[in-house]
Amino acid sequence: MDELDKKILRELQLHSRNSFTKIAQEVGVTTATVSERVKRLTEKGIICGYTTILNTSELGMVTLITKIKTKPGYSVEVVGKRIAEMEESCCIHHVTGVFDLMVISKCTGHGKCGVVIEQIKEIEGVDSVNAELVLKTIKEELKVSL
Amino acid sequence: MDELDKKILRELQLHSRNSFTKIAQEVGVTTATVSERVKRLTEKGIICGYTTILNTSELGMVTLITKIKTKPGYSVEVVGKRIAEMEESCCIHHVTGVFDLMVISKCTGHGKCGVVIEQIKEIEGVDSVNAELVLKTIKEELKVSL
Amino acid sequence: MDELDKKILRELQLHSRNSFTKIAQEVGVTTATVSERVKRLTEKGIICGYTTILNTSELGMVTLITKIKTKPGYSVEVVGKRIAEMEESCCIHHVTGVFDLMVISKCTGHGKCGVVIEQIKEIEGVDSVNAELVLKTIKEELKVSL
Amino acid sequence: MDELDKKILRELQLHSRNSFTKIAQEVGVTTATVSERVKRLTEKGIICGYTTILNTSELGMVTLITKIKTKPGYSVEVVGKRIAEMEESCCIHHVTGVFDLMVISKCTGHGKCGVVIEQIKEIEGVDSVNAELVLKTIKEELKVSL
Amino acid sequence: MDELDKKILRELQLHSRNSFTKIAQEVGVTTATVSERVKRLTEKGIICGYTTILNTSELGMVTLITKIKTKPGYSVEVVGKRIAEMEESCCIHHVTGVFDLMVISKCTGHGKCGVVIEQIKEIEGVDSVNAELVLKTIKEELKVSL
Amino acid sequence: MDELDKKILRELQLHSRNSFTKIAQEVGVTTATVSERVKRLTEKGIICGYTTILNTSELGMVTLITKIKTKPGYSVEVVGKRIAEMEESCCIHHVTGVFDLMVISKCTGHGKCGVVIEQIKEIEGVDSVNAELVLKTIKEELKVSL
Amino acid sequence: MDELDKKILRELQLHSRNSFTKIAQEVGVTTATVSERVKRLTEKGIICGYTTILNTSELGMVTLITKIKTKPGYSVEVVGKRIAEMEESCCIHHVTGVFDLMVISKCTGHGKCGVVIEQIKEIEGVDSVNAELVLKTIKEELKVSL
Amino acid sequence: MDELDKKILRELQLHSRNSFTKIAQEVGVTTATVSERVKRLTEKGIICGYTTILNTSELGMVTLITKIKTKPGYSVEVVGKRIAEMEESCCIHHVTGVFDLMVISKCTGHGKCGVVIEQIKEIEGVDSVNAELVLKTIKEELKVSL
Repeated sequence: MDELDKKILRELQLHSRNSFTKIAQEVGVTTATVSERVKRLTEKGIICGYTTILNTSELGMVTLITKIKTKPGYSVEVVGKRIAEMEESCCIHHVTGVFDLMVISKCTGHGKCGVVIEQIKEIEGVDSVNAELVLKTIKEELKVSL
Repeated sequence: MDELDKKILRELQLHSRNSFTKIAQEVGVTTATVSERVKRLTEKGIICGYTTILNTSELGMVTLITKIKTKPGYSVEVVGKRIAEMEESCCIHHVTGVFDLMVISKCTGHGKCGVVIEQIKEIEGVDSVNAELVLKTIKEELKVSL
Repeated sequence: MDELDKKILRELQLHSRNSFTKIAQEVGVTTATVSERVKRLTEKGIICGYTTILNTSELGMVTLITKIKTKPGYSVEVVGKRIAEMEESCCIHHVTGVFDLMVISKCTGHGKCGVVIEQIKEIEGVDSVNAELVLKTIKEELKVSL
Repeated sequence: MDELDKKILRELQLHSRNSFTKIAQEVGVTTATVSERVKRLTEKGIICGYTTILNTSELGMVTLITKIKTKPGYSVEVVGKRIAEMEESCCIHHVTGVFDLMVISKCTGHGKCGVVIEQIKEIEGVDSVNAELVLKTIKEELKVSL
Repeated sequence: MDELDKKILRELQLHSRNSFTKIAQEVGVTTATVSERVKRLTEKGIICGYTTILNTSELGMVTLITKIKTKPGYSVEVVGKRIAEMEESCCIHHVTGVFDLMVISKCTGHGKCGVVIEQIKEIEGVDSVNAELVLKTIKEELKVSL
Repeated sequence: MDELDKKILRELQLHSRNSFTKIAQEVGVTTATVSERVKRLTEKGIICGYTTILNTSELGMVTLITKIKTKPGYSVEVVGKRIAEMEESCCIHHVTGVFDLMVISKCTGHGKCGVVIEQIKEIEGVDSVNAELVLKTIKEELKVSL
Repeated sequence: MDELDKKILRELQLHSRNSFTKIAQEVGVTTATVSERVKRLTEKGIICGYTTILNTSELGMVTLITKIKTKPGYSVEVVGKRIAEMEESCCIHHVTGVFDLMVISKCTGHGKCGVVIEQIKEIEGVDSVNAELVLKTIKEELKVSL
Repeated sequence: MDELDKKILRELQLHSRNSFTKIAQEVGVTTATVSERVKRLTEKGIICGYTTILNTSELGMVTLITKIKTKPGYSVEVVGKRIAEMEESCCIHHVTGVFDLMVISKCTGHGKCGVVIEQIKEIEGVDSVNAELVLKTIKEELKVSL
């Protein structure tokens, strides 16, 4: 990945709806070059998709952070993939520390959080769950500094 | 927010680069309606932006999760905003539990994580920091179920 | 719930033995209005009952706070309802954090606390119990600010 | 406190709005006896007041449980009394364990909880705060078994 | 227990080998009175025995403090009594907090501590063990202030 | 310390009021030998004193276990000696783990425990205190197995 | 072990490739004496081997520290020996505290750490695992001060 | 680093006193090649030194593991380097988790551990210390699998 790739990715992270022509102007290459680079970055699995950032608290959603310890003899990854199937699950990481998994879920209202926790506790291989709620979100992006 | 708004947001979350015409076909209304709805959802602060999802581990980045306890007498929000200024910071939440803030950062390599932790520890109002590293990311999206 | 409802509830929280006539004078409406409003608030489940606040430490009672982790595969709510059947149980909440339930019990004397903890540990679905004792109660009310 | 006192207190805990005549019938003594006993129990500080139990989650309130460690050199009781002055504070106990105080607050909505936590953190003598939210209340009474 | 009982117990706690005649002189009563009081205090179970305080670190012994969580469904007291049968066990308390039992053991040397911990872990009903070693004993008495 | 020393110490631990003549009979040596050995063991600091074991819960006393973290820059031993001056302090150990000191205190009643904790918190060099109460004592001796 | 033994061991710890002649010069005895002493120290099991210290982070290796709680009924030592068979395991200690074993492993890269943790979790008798990663090694030697 | 480098390092890790000639025979190259490769690996900082592994418990040494939280505003690395100057310090790592540093020290006897902990607590920038002792060492090497 060279400096041009990085420039294009920076543009796409900031505003994914911009046309390749617009991006080409910004980074100072032809539209064809941008198009070709994006194609290659997508094929290499670096670009995974284009999404829209919503203000979820404006939508009345509550962000739930659960840390999960899996039972001995169960694969952390397999348990994580089962949790990934729940529609409230946004991020699932295998992490260091006392717990094996950290999950970020978006729930429709305060009451739903308890239900989601109970559902996670029912998944096979889950040993214990530590749940915290987000009181206020100060920043929430997926954009990384390249 | 009615059912049409939700349909449009679902489309935009799945593929933010689609044209309003394409989205209009998918949800069964005119392009003008989609355009107008998106304009209104943006004005109301529900749509915050359009971004590109990158596979950060493919880029050699390490995800760092820090939990921060702020000193008594300091505003959690003010400390959170200072951390938000660091270019590695992606998500910052004021959370329940022993720690006040949970921060997700993307660092260029294992070694950089120690540096980021030291920088967070230097911010005024930070009392203590608990850092964990992501060993493997199983899912990472901002897309929510509407 | 309008401002009049709130005024009546404030009066009832402060002194539940006052007659509707007395309350009517305080809030400046007719006795019939108070009576009707209380009836409606009771039917809507907002008023749950009228009770007397006792100074339990004056009665030689010790307040026990237990936090309970339930076993995976057991419903937190079902376990909580079993604990609610114990006559020492006053408050039972499903909470965030490492433990699932927080229970406040009133025990007749220091020695009884150990017995209550053993009884809670015997309830099916209880995984572990963290017990703390109240050394001194500084305030204890159910009255909320409306 | 004899068995008759206990019977009267049981009645008053169950329904504090009942007249002394009604209570006298229930426990099998004269109204004058009930009246005199209640007067004495109030003078001895055993009866602290009469209140109305509201379903706070029905009112959109969120129950916040904070555990507070006080700084060395500060009186736990003095810090507790300062917290008692906040209108959201219902119960404040000096407890065993790592934290010195356990506080139960009733907040008008999810967002208010963060504000209350920040306010508690600003009180002089507060060293650190561990906040948990109630996801669901299974039982909430002050009634004790006599 | 009156003031004379307390005076006699204070003397016996300070030097249990003193004759009743010596104690009688110290507290200003006849030897017969001391003898009679000691007999009664022993019968009431207040005096449990007379022992010699040894400097165990001088004897090369290491003091081990284990905190034990018992499994749900097992009586804390029964598990505690099983541990009491081990010859290294000096004190066993059912305590508040995350763990159910706190045990103080005296082991002949550093290496023996690991063996004692393994033995405690093998007792039925023991769920988990947290072991700490005493680095230095600053005070160790059973004498209480009456 | 030879086998005879051990035999004598075993006798003295079991019943410190026994005469040297009685002990001499038990261990099969002359009274003069016992007397001489006890003198030497006392001079070497192995025998520290003779005391009487009281059933403190029978006396209405509550056993308080506090774990204390000292501030950086303060000597754990100096802080421990300050706590040793409190009349409620029985045992004080410098221990491994998160806390530096473990203190066992005997308090006259439940209410006194809170006062003792507040007094410990006021001692210079004390950073934080974790207090637990004994619910029931299963065994409490200083006797060690020689 | 006398002072000469210590001198020889100090030399060997500092530079194990030095010839006995060189060491003899350094410590001021004959080569034969050094040779004989080393032979005896090896026979007594004090010298366990001669190794080369590598800068593992220079080799791209990540140091993983896992703390392991073993299940009740399983020998800590037996579980530790199973973990010792893994080629990544460098140091395994039976330790005090909440966890029974502390393991230091050297893994070829960040990603391998998760795999090693999963493998440890699969070993029979392992109850739970707390994993931490080394962000930077400041010192790493086996050399002790004699 | 190619396969030959790895082979040579494997030999040197297993027995650092072997001559280059012996190593050359084992790996099937000339002595000159081994000599040259070792020179290059040393210059690149991969080979840091040659040491002798001692059985420290055989020498009566106790292994102490301390975890250290540094104060906000202090560099973890600077504090770590100060600890590295203590002659008991063997390994010092900047780690993830609640604590910033993990230190392994070798102390001459149980009693010395308390002294070392007190010394660490006195170093500027140290906020708190969690100390554990090794009860038994199951494996202790620096050898890594290449």
